[in-house]
Amino acid sequence: MAILQLGSIEAGGTKFVCAVGNEDYRTLDKVRIPTTTPEETLDKTVAYFKKFPDLKAIAISSFGPIELRRNSPKYGFITDTPKKGWANTDFLGRLKQDFDIPMAWTTDVNGSAYGEYVTSTLFNEKINSLVYFTIGTGVGAGAVIDGKFVGSMGHPEVGHVRLKRHPDDLDFPGICPFHGDCLEGLVSGPTFDARLGKPGKDVPLTDHVWDIMAYYVAQAALQETLLLRPDKIVFGGGVVSEPFLVKVRAEFAKLLNGYVDVGDLTDYIVMPLVKENGSATLGDYALALKEYNK
Amino acid sequence: MAILQLGSIEAGGTKFVCAVGNEDYRTLDKVRIPTTTPEETLDKTVAYFKKFPDLKAIAISSFGPIELRRNSPKYGFITDTPKKGWANTDFLGRLKQDFDIPMAWTTDVNGSAYGEYVTSTLFNEKINSLVYFTIGTGVGAGAVIDGKFVGSMGHPEVGHVRLKRHPDDLDFPGICPFHGDCLEGLVSGPTFDARLGKPGKDVPLTDHVWDIMAYYVAQAALQETLLLRPDKIVFGGGVVSEPFLVKVRAEFAKLLNGYVDVGDLTDYIVMPLVKENGSATLGDYALALKEYNK
Ligand SMILES: Nc1ncnc2c1ncn2[C@@H]1O[C@H](COP(=O)(O)OP(=O)(O)O)[C@@H](O)[C@H]1O
Ligand SMILES: Nc1ncnc2c1ncn2[C@@H]1O[C@H](COP(=O)(O)OP(=O)(O)O)[C@@H](O)[C@H]1O
Ligand SMILES: [Zn+2]
Ligand SMILES: [Zn+2]
Repeated sequence: MAILQLGSIEAGGTKFVCAVGNEDYRTLDKVRIPTTTPEETLDKTVAYFKKFPDLKAIAISSFGPIELRRNSPKYGFITDTPKKGWANTDFLGRLKQDFDIPMAWTTDVNGSAYGEYVTSTLFNEKINSLVYFTIGTGVGAGAVIDGKFVGSMGHPEVGHVRLKRHPDDLDFPGICPFHGDCLEGLVSGPTFDARLGKPGKDVPLTDHVWDIMAYYVAQAALQETLLLRPDKIVFGGGVVSEPFLVKVRAEFAKLLNGYVDVGDLTDYIVMPLVKENGSATLGDYALALKEYNK
Repeated sequence: MAILQLGSIEAGGTKFVCAVGNEDYRTLDKVRIPTTTPEETLDKTVAYFKKFPDLKAIAISSFGPIELRRNSPKYGFITDTPKKGWANTDFLGRLKQDFDIPMAWTTDVNGSAYGEYVTSTLFNEKINSLVYFTIGTGVGAGAVIDGKFVGSMGHPEVGHVRLKRHPDDLDFPGICPFHGDCLEGLVSGPTFDARLGKPGKDVPLTDHVWDIMAYYVAQAALQETLLLRPDKIVFGGGVVSEPFLVKVRAEFAKLLNGYVDVGDLTDYIVMPLVKENGSATLGDYALALKEYNK
């Protein structure tokens, strides 16, 4: 039996992870390309995939904001990103110059959400909907309902909601250049540096700032719960660890106060099933396969 | 040509509005039944629809919480409502005792959301998704994406999210018995009585409390915007008026700060298209028709 080759591009602000896998979601080959200029980075990406002439489809999970309305002339573009040089980049168009195969195009967090959704199903969890949060340099989330991404005007931008401030954190103005104390302005990785003058990895979990973080992240989970009623909320990104999620679950339970039933919290608010930040790559294989089968 | 008769039950905590309409969403007959005990109210409801032997389907938009997971033994029930006598009421089961026709079952706000969604489409708006908020005795919202309701674990309960407090409202504890200062605890109709000792209809729009209300309601709209990216957000309920929405739009614009494009705010944050609280009844006709055509 011939093995189907499927391409994945996880396009991040620091690096691109390009990989080739098969319909069993197994990675056959993988490479990291540093994110420099769009021209250089996309040329290297194209050159990499040229080595796989049997490639059947490619899926791209990109940092954003991106245009994903198919009826837009900018479909496939990275739009008004603050990342230097990358605003208004025709990402998909560049790939189409060299490859005449089906392509899927979505956000990094949507790709991760899809990977976790597919993996949950493979693990026989009864999942119809899932939210994937990343809490890293920025904060974002992707959501899948019945195999489709949420967002018809555009992709979600949950990093910029407002929250009830923690009583012990009222003086911190937040670091979002657009909103100050939005979710991202209060809990992204760089908030550790802003609050304490050192990176989060050097702040022990006994520090009270982690309780404050948990209070905010729990409110974000609460919003998704009450607006979407998903079956599961997955948290990834550099800031997140299982001990941190223990705190998040405790705050979430207090905030929800039993108002709706979400089942066992240890199954509801969870770390990714796919290890080593592989959720988006796996999601991409699944999205590429879906595009190929269309 | 025979006219299709479709039944609508808008089941509220104060009254049931029962109506019969046709596939053009025109009302042929309508009656109000006060909400007393489940037995009496549902008996009267059944008796009303018995007068229409040609009825082809019925849709119910009910106050909640309700069970809408079809695989649940309690599907069709009003579940743990605080409304006296109504907890654990087999609403759909009672109707099925007397009618052997297709029935749709959803929440009051979902019914309204669907009515507005259908009407928007009839008005040639390009709408793929819509959120309907009610701000009345309680606060809730329903959401439709591509013709389907959002919520796979259960229906949304957006009334209980937390918000950034307005600097001039920090001392008000909120009135939600479960959460204090959740959205409903801060902006439902009875908060006027709690804050000012008089009902909202007696508080002029020049009163600063309306700015505070607008700040919170704008945050609720912001959450829906950033989590769902809907095409339109409709506000109904006794507290809402067009002059109030003018304030809400202004606060929303400040909070969003141009971060995502939602188009013209006067088309995005709007009053219902269907007049006289008729959104749910119209939505019910459409849902009943859909059930009939299945
Ligand atoms: N153990 C940790 N605790 C808290 N924050 C951390 C930890 N490790 C990394 N971070 C923070 O996470 C952010 C990077 O997140 P990551 O998800 O790895 O990358 P990115 O979001 O850029 O893709 C940085 O701000 C970093 O300081
Ligand atoms: N003009 C008004 N301004 C502010 N609040 C109002 C106004 N009219 C009614 N209300 C409040 O709205 C609530 C009733 O909301 P409504 O949507 O009519 O009913 P319900 O939510 O019970 O179905 C009450 O708390 C009432 O005080
Ligand atoms: Zn922000
Ligand atoms: Zn509440």
